[in-house]
Amino acid sequence: MLPIEQVYEKIGVKAEHMEFYGRYKAKVDDSLYEELKNKPDGKLVLVTAINPTPAGEGKTTTTIGLSQALNKLGKKSAVALREPSLGPCMGVKGGATGGGYSQVVPMEDINLHFTGDIHAITCANNVLSSIIDNHIQQGNALKIDTRRVTWKRALDLNDRALRNVIVGLGGKQNGFAREESFQITVASEIMAIVCLCDDLKDLKKRLGRIIIGYNTENKQITAKDLKADGAMAALLKDAIKPNLVQTLENTPAVIHGGPFANIAHGCNSIRATRLALKLCDITVTEAGFGADLGAEKFFDIKCRIAGLKPDAAVLVATVRALKYNGGIARDNLSIPDVEAVRKGFVNLRKHIENLQKYKVPVVVALNAFTSDSEDEISFIREECAKAGATFALSEVWAKGGEGGLELAQKVLETLETKTSAFKPLYENDLNIEEKIETVCKQIYGASKINYDAKAAAEIKRLNKTSMRKLPVCIAKTQYSLSDDPSLLGRPEGFTVTVREARPSAGAGFIVVLLGDIMTMPGLPKQPAAEVIDIDENGNIIGLF
Amino acid sequence: MLPIEQVYEKIGVKAEHMEFYGRYKAKVDDSLYEELKNKPDGKLVLVTAINPTPAGEGKTTTTIGLSQALNKLGKKSAVALREPSLGPCMGVKGGATGGGYSQVVPMEDINLHFTGDIHAITCANNVLSSIIDNHIQQGNALKIDTRRVTWKRALDLNDRALRNVIVGLGGKQNGFAREESFQITVASEIMAIVCLCDDLKDLKKRLGRIIIGYNTENKQITAKDLKADGAMAALLKDAIKPNLVQTLENTPAVIHGGPFANIAHGCNSIRATRLALKLCDITVTEAGFGADLGAEKFFDIKCRIAGLKPDAAVLVATVRALKYNGGIARDNLSIPDVEAVRKGFVNLRKHIENLQKYKVPVVVALNAFTSDSEDEISFIREECAKAGATFALSEVWAKGGEGGLELAQKVLETLETKTSAFKPLYENDLNIEEKIETVCKQIYGASKINYDAKAAAEIKRLNKTSMRKLPVCIAKTQYSLSDDPSLLGRPEGFTVTVREARPSAGAGFIVVLLGDIMTMPGLPKQPAAEVIDIDENGNIIGLF
Repeated sequence: MLPIEQVYEKIGVKAEHMEFYGRYKAKVDDSLYEELKNKPDGKLVLVTAINPTPAGEGKTTTTIGLSQALNKLGKKSAVALREPSLGPCMGVKGGATGGGYSQVVPMEDINLHFTGDIHAITCANNVLSSIIDNHIQQGNALKIDTRRVTWKRALDLNDRALRNVIVGLGGKQNGFAREESFQITVASEIMAIVCLCDDLKDLKKRLGRIIIGYNTENKQITAKDLKADGAMAALLKDAIKPNLVQTLENTPAVIHGGPFANIAHGCNSIRATRLALKLCDITVTEAGFGADLGAEKFFDIKCRIAGLKPDAAVLVATVRALKYNGGIARDNLSIPDVEAVRKGFVNLRKHIENLQKYKVPVVVALNAFTSDSEDEISFIREECAKAGATFALSEVWAKGGEGGLELAQKVLETLETKTSAFKPLYENDLNIEEKIETVCKQIYGASKINYDAKAAAEIKRLNKTSMRKLPVCIAKTQYSLSDDPSLLGRPEGFTVTVREARPSAGAGFIVVLLGDIMTMPGLPKQPAAEVIDIDENGNIIGLF
Repeated sequence: MLPIEQVYEKIGVKAEHMEFYGRYKAKVDDSLYEELKNKPDGKLVLVTAINPTPAGEGKTTTTIGLSQALNKLGKKSAVALREPSLGPCMGVKGGATGGGYSQVVPMEDINLHFTGDIHAITCANNVLSSIIDNHIQQGNALKIDTRRVTWKRALDLNDRALRNVIVGLGGKQNGFAREESFQITVASEIMAIVCLCDDLKDLKKRLGRIIIGYNTENKQITAKDLKADGAMAALLKDAIKPNLVQTLENTPAVIHGGPFANIAHGCNSIRATRLALKLCDITVTEAGFGADLGAEKFFDIKCRIAGLKPDAAVLVATVRALKYNGGIARDNLSIPDVEAVRKGFVNLRKHIENLQKYKVPVVVALNAFTSDSEDEISFIREECAKAGATFALSEVWAKGGEGGLELAQKVLETLETKTSAFKPLYENDLNIEEKIETVCKQIYGASKINYDAKAAAEIKRLNKTSMRKLPVCIAKTQYSLSDDPSLLGRPEGFTVTVREARPSAGAGFIVVLLGDIMTMPGLPKQPAAEVIDIDENGNIIGLF
């Protein structure tokens, strides 16, 4: 690792713009963006993926490796990534800092507390909750209906026992009893707000717009009604500043914000991406889950709100995931099987088609595993060409930037020879059902959309308000293009069911739930926390 | 403010020992103490107080002002203080960074998230909780009795609705329902552990010893039984490093750890105090609440465990608090009234006598208010002399170090002419009742100690274990020497009632409750959070 100021002086960031958090982490002051804002943006490349196996397909690793390779080719490139949540880190997944020779560092710090952004969001979230319950306790001047408080408390942990709780027990001195539910902090609307705001002023405005629930007269109550917006913004003053770290090859890595990719939009902050675009020739960023969720939201929510124009999309696939989508069981994914790859390729083809609907050129990155056979790779290479996508084999896990040179070359060629005519999938002025229909039919491949009665009623109500103009943020399973995780490959002719719709008025989108979405994960039988340890010299063991 | 490295280079801390958190905050690496550990310690001065009015008597302000004044007199002096909790900051109390011209800075940062220590403790606390409930959910191999889980979740907020909750509702997938209670993070045993541990190794050992509850065979279950100690220690690796900031007069301020002063011991970390003693001629530190709670625990818990030898105690009093202890109503404390001061002086005299029991010389610091009359001050000065304590008027709020020169002179004279023969009040090998009796009779002035049946049974059980040797950490009201907040002045002949006793096996003390102790405060009708705000340029308003 290089001292962080050395990594960033190469791309013109002076130490005076940085607030250091130890030797290898820094936050960047708004003054830097102010200085650069009239400079033209560099190119923006999104890394997304096909529908994954439960083990994931190496999207973050590819993002990091590609940027490292671009630097090897003499380009100024940075990655813009999300911050990892502590929950999965203590649970099953381990960290979210890439892998092999394509990682961001210091890994332990980034995975554990980093610069405290997520903790600040937890605080701001729960201060609002405490103000809600205190308001009710102190006379309830706003007549908040305790049965209709939609704002939830949050902790950045996997903790199933907090999914359904009752708070306020114990009598008169201890509040009014009501049902409550904790979500993981990265699922908090405040995380989405931090990621979508322009600046401190916009942050405060968005925080004020948060709907905390309804009063007994069926009127929405906002955080501003409770005078909570100022304190929340004060708690988030540093959390909205992008964080600067580096990759194992000393490539700049801006890591900032980490919203869930189901009930939120799953991308790092707009502020971080904007900054990286000013600093670099090519910014490589990623979006959560597969392209049906991640890329769709990146394009239709983040790029729309921020006015970003992505120049290319890299679609990560693995031979394993193609076989999985071709119906092979998880334990047999290492056995060469071209036929299964052929069967599963329909999933990749659908994602290529989807990305092309946004008028963005597509490069498929096949993330190599030692179990891949030549035949399997050749088949994929040929089929990608037929689908109109460039293909590259990526070995960034095993070889770092060196293993990403083919991919970087293909990306550079694409940026030089193909023009992005990026356009979101739908216009703001469609109504909410029309937006839902557009995404479900065009991206997922659904034939029909059903609405549960409650969802239909809420959508009807929202269509009569200014929230009609907001984009939709659809939450569904990541394992299928449909709302049924068992439908692998390229399902067609299916019906999706809209179970619920709710406004995230601060974030600026309408959350649409297809199925039950878990916003508070649980720990597995053998949690990662049991093996995480630290020795006397401060070396952490068991984080990966 | 000076850049933090400039403040500390004056006392021999090189930048290489520091991990910077922005320009004005740093954590200090263990390597510094390693280098210094054979150097003789400087002098240690404790600042404590008489029983306060609900507004507080300016103990932190006096601590900071005294240190600033000592620097003005050419001494190398630092303050060692506690970290403020967010709860009171959002609630009624405002920040905890001193006042007037005797403050530590950057005030907003120290009061809000500082370097994240308290957030790390919240996480470690709640990871343990999630592991407990997950263990029960995944088969409960240790047979944890869900009715006897004593470990509580924590948040660093004032939130009465979390005092009594039920978690684990919602059926099979969501855990086993059980009663739970959140406490404010600064009341967590982990905060006490962070403050009492020697190093990372000792931290992990103490975390492992935490008793989380009992199994169906009435056996204690520890954090180590759940393999949670390693992950918790990893989460706390930076939180145990002392934080370096400065006062308004650029005096070094080591601010680290902030345990409650009732169910915990109410002092900053041992590691911070040890470090300051190596760096300075005179370290000025404080302990929470009045001397009956704060000084007693500082001496009998912190100094005992750390092997520290305090050289003097400064006892802060105000004319207002003496009148309050003399029976004057809160609204009339500004009216000159020597007779009321005379009546209330018994409280100050008792605290002087108490401090003398530890064989430590006492300096009374009268924290000046504009409403104080000459007659009142003269009376106190004369009575202090009769009680064998040095007296100094302190004007550090209005004048900073300049206003503390008289106090600093008196403290220096005391250190030069009087020898501390410090000794804790009781020996380790008394049994638990004997320890309780010693503190209650000698410090509080009680005549008799009653035990509720449950407390008596638990003490009997603890006396048969190795925990018999631990010091007691008594929780009671701060407003009276007794366990009844309405008994002001110097109550005598009273009976105290021990309601509960519980081992804090990780921290290394037995918590003894006299009365109901609130470990999760609530917000007031007009919470400070409503007025806290931030402008577009990042200036915070309403924090004080």
